[in-house]
Amino acid sequence: MKRPSFFLFVLVSFCLLYDTLYGKDGYNLWLQYAKIESPELVDAYRKNTHKITLPQNSSTTNIIKNELTKAFKGMLLTSPEFSEKNIENHNLVIGTRDNFPWLIELVDKKQLDSLGQEGFIIKSTFFKDQPITVITGNSDLALLYGTFEFLKLIQTHKSISDLNITSIPKTKIRVLNHWDNLDRSVERGYAGSSIWNWHLLPDHIDQQYLDYARANASIGINGTVLTNVNANALVLTPSYLKKAAALAEVFRPYGIKVYLTARFSAPIEIGNLKTADPLDKNVQKWWKEKAEEIYSYIPNFGGFLVKADSEGQPGPHNYGRTQADGANLLAQALKPFGGIVMWRAFVYSEDTPDDRAKQAYNEFKPLDGKFDNNVLVQVKNGPIDFQPREPVHPLFGAMPQTPLMMEFQITQEYLGQGTHLVYLSKLYEEILSTDINAKGPGSTVAKIIDGSLENHPLSGMAGVSNIGTARNWTGNHFGQANWYAFGKLAWNPYEKSEKIAKDWIEMTFSSDPQFINTSLDIMMESHEAVVNYMTPLGLHHIMDWNHHYGPGPWVTDKHRDDWTSTYYHQAGADGIGFDRTSSGSNALSQYSSTIQNQFTNLKTCPEKYLLWFHHLPWSYQMQSGKTLWEELAFRYQKGVDQTTQALQQWSTLEGKIDDERYKHILSFLKIQEKEAKWWKNACLLYFQQFSKSPLPQGVDDPKKTLEDYKKYNPQFVPGI
Amino acid sequence: MKRPSFFLFVLVSFCLLYDTLYGKDGYNLWLQYAKIESPELVDAYRKNTHKITLPQNSSTTNIIKNELTKAFKGMLLTSPEFSEKNIENHNLVIGTRDNFPWLIELVDKKQLDSLGQEGFIIKSTFFKDQPITVITGNSDLALLYGTFEFLKLIQTHKSISDLNITSIPKTKIRVLNHWDNLDRSVERGYAGSSIWNWHLLPDHIDQQYLDYARANASIGINGTVLTNVNANALVLTPSYLKKAAALAEVFRPYGIKVYLTARFSAPIEIGNLKTADPLDKNVQKWWKEKAEEIYSYIPNFGGFLVKADSEGQPGPHNYGRTQADGANLLAQALKPFGGIVMWRAFVYSEDTPDDRAKQAYNEFKPLDGKFDNNVLVQVKNGPIDFQPREPVHPLFGAMPQTPLMMEFQITQEYLGQGTHLVYLSKLYEEILSTDINAKGPGSTVAKIIDGSLENHPLSGMAGVSNIGTARNWTGNHFGQANWYAFGKLAWNPYEKSEKIAKDWIEMTFSSDPQFINTSLDIMMESHEAVVNYMTPLGLHHIMDWNHHYGPGPWVTDKHRDDWTSTYYHQAGADGIGFDRTSSGSNALSQYSSTIQNQFTNLKTCPEKYLLWFHHLPWSYQMQSGKTLWEELAFRYQKGVDQTTQALQQWSTLEGKIDDERYKHILSFLKIQEKEAKWWKNACLLYFQQFSKSPLPQGVDDPKKTLEDYKKYNPQFVPGI
Repeated sequence: MKRPSFFLFVLVSFCLLYDTLYGKDGYNLWLQYAKIESPELVDAYRKNTHKITLPQNSSTTNIIKNELTKAFKGMLLTSPEFSEKNIENHNLVIGTRDNFPWLIELVDKKQLDSLGQEGFIIKSTFFKDQPITVITGNSDLALLYGTFEFLKLIQTHKSISDLNITSIPKTKIRVLNHWDNLDRSVERGYAGSSIWNWHLLPDHIDQQYLDYARANASIGINGTVLTNVNANALVLTPSYLKKAAALAEVFRPYGIKVYLTARFSAPIEIGNLKTADPLDKNVQKWWKEKAEEIYSYIPNFGGFLVKADSEGQPGPHNYGRTQADGANLLAQALKPFGGIVMWRAFVYSEDTPDDRAKQAYNEFKPLDGKFDNNVLVQVKNGPIDFQPREPVHPLFGAMPQTPLMMEFQITQEYLGQGTHLVYLSKLYEEILSTDINAKGPGSTVAKIIDGSLENHPLSGMAGVSNIGTARNWTGNHFGQANWYAFGKLAWNPYEKSEKIAKDWIEMTFSSDPQFINTSLDIMMESHEAVVNYMTPLGLHHIMDWNHHYGPGPWVTDKHRDDWTSTYYHQAGADGIGFDRTSSGSNALSQYSSTIQNQFTNLKTCPEKYLLWFHHLPWSYQMQSGKTLWEELAFRYQKGVDQTTQALQQWSTLEGKIDDERYKHILSFLKIQEKEAKWWKNACLLYFQQFSKSPLPQGVDDPKKTLEDYKKYNPQFVPGI
Repeated sequence: MKRPSFFLFVLVSFCLLYDTLYGKDGYNLWLQYAKIESPELVDAYRKNTHKITLPQNSSTTNIIKNELTKAFKGMLLTSPEFSEKNIENHNLVIGTRDNFPWLIELVDKKQLDSLGQEGFIIKSTFFKDQPITVITGNSDLALLYGTFEFLKLIQTHKSISDLNITSIPKTKIRVLNHWDNLDRSVERGYAGSSIWNWHLLPDHIDQQYLDYARANASIGINGTVLTNVNANALVLTPSYLKKAAALAEVFRPYGIKVYLTARFSAPIEIGNLKTADPLDKNVQKWWKEKAEEIYSYIPNFGGFLVKADSEGQPGPHNYGRTQADGANLLAQALKPFGGIVMWRAFVYSEDTPDDRAKQAYNEFKPLDGKFDNNVLVQVKNGPIDFQPREPVHPLFGAMPQTPLMMEFQITQEYLGQGTHLVYLSKLYEEILSTDINAKGPGSTVAKIIDGSLENHPLSGMAGVSNIGTARNWTGNHFGQANWYAFGKLAWNPYEKSEKIAKDWIEMTFSSDPQFINTSLDIMMESHEAVVNYMTPLGLHHIMDWNHHYGPGPWVTDKHRDDWTSTYYHQAGADGIGFDRTSSGSNALSQYSSTIQNQFTNLKTCPEKYLLWFHHLPWSYQMQSGKTLWEELAFRYQKGVDQTTQALQQWSTLEGKIDDERYKHILSFLKIQEKEAKWWKNACLLYFQQFSKSPLPQGVDDPKKTLEDYKKYNPQFVPGI
């Protein structure tokens, strides 16, 4: 036995040589399929995956075969033997009960029935006294999902010898929202241009489209909105529908439906109508015919996402109609074909002087029950706009008759944009696990999102994509974790961020325990860090004008108050914070009484939301015993210290992974530390004008003046 | 011996497995370093490269070491043994005579002296009776160039046992011109965005910058102009100079200098001066100080590239000064630091009604001898603007006292843009080998460009880059060949396109003879094909308005005649073509009398330039015996047929290379065939209005009408 193991050693060495010949640019995401080093593990995995039975009757099963081939080549250096039908002597069987009627004897029929079309079972069992692993479900797509889950177990070095996994997605619609324009610019995109090369579609199908679909399928995402919510009606014209259809055809075997954004004024712009009034017969006819036309190009078209009556977008308000009138117009057009409408609740008016945080609730709450049953109202996690931290949006729990879809932002518009390492799953989890007490304790946002609280058949979660043409897809390597975590939470909004992160690290980088633990620490701390160095204690919307890059607490006197920082922080000699209690905007009245009481009372209001709801004097005494000013200063300092620590921690990982990704991440962490200091210094110098107090000991003195920071005017900031 | 070879087989199989695990996206360009299959070759190469002596005293020698390591891992599956000094038993010695004084005994001293700082020698010789290969030169950069040449021999499976190569670059300045804007858009760029991430510079040094420098060094390119000739003065401000300096630092060990475009009005825009008059003392002072400032950031700064007085750019004309006044202003500022000015001859006026093809000559010829000695005048290959085919620019040969630099376009603004396979080396070669008879027969353009005709110490060649963020750098895989060929021709303007193509194919794709021959056929035919289906017989500038994508022979009535198609083709009932003889614009008078006579005489004027210089009736009889109309139609048809053939030829190569690149190229060839038909049909239908003759037999009937083609209005065309 000595010889083979020596040769195995040579073999492995050469393959590792080969591996390092080309740097790792991150393109392979969490599907690295890195070679497993432990011979015991490799042996165990090989034994259970050597002979695979897998029917080849669809593009999807073909994808499964390719994925297994690629995975086992990479991880185990083997090529499994496939058979379409033969079960004898095989150890991994992948199929539906239509493929293998005998499955019913091994897997509970009820359980199978409960899976729906997307759920799957992975089970270690016996066939004719031989141990086998079965991956089954009620569709080929379910088999694909099960396969990726099975491969994840191997990627994360888990035992696969005694499995009994049942996994059913808790939400129906799990979609990425691409804010991608037809000219390939990406609104709030920090990872290069749009990956949709509209110019070359439908003729050129880029490999990246397939890789995109594969990555999404691996985490259960089943839909993609190709275009920006600030929409261009051109995408609904035949030449663009052909292009979208080509993408839909690529995505179909991966279980991913294509959706488009519908510009509300499209009937005027591309339909030659004089109006887009939702109650106008010709407008209704136009949309019905348009829907029919779309389905002629894209038979499995998912439906529309709409941003209306907000930030310059046209909508039903232009005709004195309600958001429900607008949504139902499109819903009725799509209904015959099984399409849905995702109607965004992000509506706030240029003319309404009321607290922007209240407007969506005021607009939508009265419309509860008025939406057609193929409409979801898509609500951002908080009432302002994807801030580093926001309290939960008051609409959650306030519209029991309407399925509410969650809109999370994966792209980091307000959280460091292209470079900052922020593991957003912590933010998502904080919101999803919030108990809004809509139907007594335990009414978490997750239960609203998955439809279980009110028994809605429709449910969903949307993530505003952070994907672009960057070689690693997301610019920041850790941005991949946010895409991954979004998919996992859309499938199961109750899953824990820590578990998700751990799997992701191992699949993406390394199984080295020190690497995993250190990376995990950095990730788990990162959301609190960004809140600290940007907007601690409930501060919000104090970034720089327009591009939202860097601090801008001084932004004031713009044509809209609710686009300025001074409107939100209300800092003055008397203190700081936005009074949203009954003495102020009373936005708190929009929450359940439990939350209302908790947040109104200064003693019970969590300090993380303090200045979101309260305007307080600089001398206000915090739980720590410090004054508000001191606490604020310490929080900013802490945020900086957390980035410094992350940088130090990362530096200990040199040599644990490939140099290319190690260095890339290192330089981004350095930028993050630098920018954290910029945030801290600019904000503290600015607020100090009002607090008129010195920085407490332990808080580093800024090296520059407030004027220096105000003058700094970076050009050509990405993402606009 | 049986065992090892069996295990070698297993080894190789696994490594190949590994190789195919990840698709080839083309990022590695011509530096694929694919494993060599032939055991004999591998043996021979290993024997000669097993032990390498290479001093480690600079970043450049470190780069050489890494390159050899990577190359031999990839091609030979070996890790060579390196020593800094030990020569005993070593078989590859890389160093200067400073490193190894004994080199003088093996390599002729005179020969060494003649190499300059960039030339190199690769020689098979003996050291103490042991066979060795020596790579030497007078700088570490020369060693790097020699190393890449040596590796190329292995990549192309040549013998390395009896070498005696001396290679000295014939031009001094070999630069890419990036028409990249600070917002990362790329003017006439069809391969994604700019690879310069200005926003993250100087903090983040992307791996791609290193890979860019490496690729350029491998083909002898020694400079890069980072910014667009339509310039933004901001790049000359400190914050951007720091960014440019970071890139310069990355590029330095690869022998690549950074150049910037200087906006002529910068003294006003960023210097607060009231004028940019080149004769104004304050303006002169401002540029001198600016140069000093730039060199404080970038000690090896190369100099400026300037587009002045053209297409809206400011310039000396604004102050009634000459182009020489403008160029010398900057040249004097750069002179103390060794910098140069590349002053573009692409000047034509909005107000001058004269033939655009004549204006550069009229502007610059009288200034010959008036430029400072650190100025090069950068002249496009033809007098209009990078058309599929142009006669040589009349300035070549007309300014003997001025070093003229060649400006070729590598990006395919007028040659199919992102998708068409056009091997531009054939176009470059056609121009470089043109005998302009400036000093009697044999006065080729190459001799002007390399300075040999007039003994100019300065010389250079510029290529407008086709590089972007596309995963394969150039969008079109065959665009890489044009980048490669540009570098090779800049080094040696006498090299043959066919040889360059052959090397490139083998280094990039495969050593399979069928693959090489078929690809070579396609490449060598491709330039003639695009001329045929776009602008046969000397037609030019008949593409669509503004974005220049697709045919637009009908473009007319714009605010500038010389931006319309009708101005250039002059098609009417009486015939077609631009009369540039003495009966017309007399542009021919700008050429040497030999060329003048040849091109004026219809019997000797090459048909490829016929309609560039002559307006002829539709019934004019061509050499083929056909009428002009028939010949025109046949040429268009031939262009289409050539694309069809290329597509068919490529289809025979399936399985010969990785699937990813094979399919990518296949789909681009399909687009090319489709667009060739579009060109042929649109142009023939348009011209048929005037020829009033049927299409001759053998020319396919268009499926659409002229109105269909005129109405087609593609949106969001890339590259503007």
